Amino acid sequence: MKIGKRTIKLETSPSITGFAAVAGKKEGQGPLGKEFDYLYPDGLIGEKTFEKAESLMQKDAATRAIQKANLTPDKVNVAFAGDLLNQCIGSNYGLRDLNIPFVGLYGACSTMAESLLMASVFVDRGLASNALAVTSSHFCSAERQFRYPLEYGGQRTPTAQWTATASGAVVVSSSVQAPYVKGCCIGKIVDLGVKDINNMGAAMAPAAADTIHTFLQDTATDPQQYDKIVTGDLGQIGSNLLVQLLRQDGIDISANHEDCGLLLYDQETQDVHAGGSGCGCSAAVLCSILLKKIMAGVYRNVLFIATGALMSTVTNQQGESIPGIAHLVHLSSDRWEEK
Amino acid sequence: MKIGKRTIKLETSPSITGFAAVAGKKEGQGPLGKEFDYLYPDGLIGEKTFEKAESLMQKDAATRAIQKANLTPDKVNVAFAGDLLNQCIGSNYGLRDLNIPFVGLYGACSTMAESLLMASVFVDRGLASNALAVTSSHFCSAERQFRYPLEYGGQRTPTAQWTATASGAVVVSSSVQAPYVKGCCIGKIVDLGVKDINNMGAAMAPAAADTIHTFLQDTATDPQQYDKIVTGDLGQIGSNLLVQLLRQDGIDISANHEDCGLLLYDQETQDVHAGGSGCGCSAAVLCSILLKKIMAGVYRNVLFIATGALMSTVTNQQGESIPGIAHLVHLSSDRWEEK
Repeated sequence: MKIGKRTIKLETSPSITGFAAVAGKKEGQGPLGKEFDYLYPDGLIGEKTFEKAESLMQKDAATRAIQKANLTPDKVNVAFAGDLLNQCIGSNYGLRDLNIPFVGLYGACSTMAESLLMASVFVDRGLASNALAVTSSHFCSAERQFRYPLEYGGQRTPTAQWTATASGAVVVSSSVQAPYVKGCCIGKIVDLGVKDINNMGAAMAPAAADTIHTFLQDTATDPQQYDKIVTGDLGQIGSNLLVQLLRQDGIDISANHEDCGLLLYDQETQDVHAGGSGCGCSAAVLCSILLKKIMAGVYRNVLFIATGALMSTVTNQQGESIPGIAHLVHLSSDRWEEK
Repeated sequence: MKIGKRTIKLETSPSITGFAAVAGKKEGQGPLGKEFDYLYPDGLIGEKTFEKAESLMQKDAATRAIQKANLTPDKVNVAFAGDLLNQCIGSNYGLRDLNIPFVGLYGACSTMAESLLMASVFVDRGLASNALAVTSSHFCSAERQFRYPLEYGGQRTPTAQWTATASGAVVVSSSVQAPYVKGCCIGKIVDLGVKDINNMGAAMAPAAADTIHTFLQDTATDPQQYDKIVTGDLGQIGSNLLVQLLRQDGIDISANHEDCGLLLYDQETQDVHAGGSGCGCSAAVLCSILLKKIMAGVYRNVLFIATGALMSTVTNQQGESIPGIAHLVHLSSDRWEEK
């Protein structure tokens, strides 16, 4: 059933039967360090390159999530995955050996929500019994692809965010156990003309506002009906802008809004400037405390909105602005009541 | 309904209500030149860069397909799109202004089948009334990203293929008019260790063989039951390998197999070596003669299998092999009979 303009209600309330987050050393030293399934001691993880290390992280997260769902890869009907690297090599090589039917996605840092949304829709509509959603980012592979060689040590602006070294994976199944996925809202590409690639939060905030506004309108619900409204990686600046943009629309999320980019690191001590970012940032937060708290019933209803900046170094060099996108997933400790 | 291992039957037989192909000068001079909706006189199309030109092609193909479906963009519930460029900027910037809920994909040259598959599934399962599938490639943007600067004029090997400058778009609707989409099969990542980036056909052929074999097995059908089995862009070498691989499995597709990479250009006169390639190659062939012939009933049943090579320049430089993927869509001039 579609509700309103864009919101999809998942009538069967698909279950999240397995989830896992793996992360790097710096992420392990942050406030969520103890919540992750595995922490790598260094950035290469025994591989020869950072890109191979990122692939390994995705494979690791996916394998752990599948195991925690008491499944084997051959029982997973479809995998939705993507990442920030050119041609999404983190996913393509990371999931290569799992032999699972594969739908490659590109949603930049919105990928955790995009993949979870697709996996949930596939299970809800009987297209899959078990579906996998996975994504990753790696500080070193992202930094050298999007910005400067690591050795250069370029100074970062106060608005810049820190790309997380992390991967998160979720298995969605047609089962009856919390957490449940009750609905979702596919994002639109929103571009208000921000051109500063050192301020991704500002570029993505309008897309998050658009998706949250649409979802609340479609479902005729208020922010207060959700324990948490958790955005992906807007960081400090993007988060402030999001609250401000929604306030202009008469929506106040300030009491229950949190941002994964502000949860992953200690803003005081870890020198990440405006916060964390990267596909792995929201993935690692979702696949650790967020899903654990929903499973335990600490949070009953959570909106998870991962945000992505859909630019490339080429579009930036050609003077283009940065389009943003935000996909939303409604997670809950309860199912929809059966009629 | 899922059939067998991976095949999804689309019970409602969603309709393709609009489709359009736009292409460059060289493609216009090929055997299908007259079949395209629009031919651009040059590679820049009035834009400052090849990347902006590629975005414009996607916007153009999408807009034409929507118009031909007698719709406006606001009636399209979701768009599935992707391309070869880093961070899929062809799609992200091409569809930015259309204001359609957007699911970004990355499937390399398999994107036309991947996006059409997703659009068809969304319409079949009541998630969308109208869904858009679109992709593109551009010789100049691809060549300079994946190989050499254009000015270098590097010599091409006999196994190399020519990246098509083209875009194709399809609108799938819950309607009753041919062509219909009756089923689909999501591909797996298959990597038999081919490392030669100048021989993509060989890298992708095993994935095509796997998907075709699985679909025929799942549906208990023979190649002879399909008027055409059309692969994406295997070119001459990949096509030969595909026929050979399937023959080893006891499946003979030689009588009705065609490849978009061999249909788009004149192999004798257009100097494309092993054939055409790029997301736009299979997209332009599908969205011109292929869908026209199915609509007219010349072909009653066609399997369309677009193939993708999931590598990047980075994985190649790091000594990795090239994983392939192939997604399949079953197109028909007839619906499934209602029970």
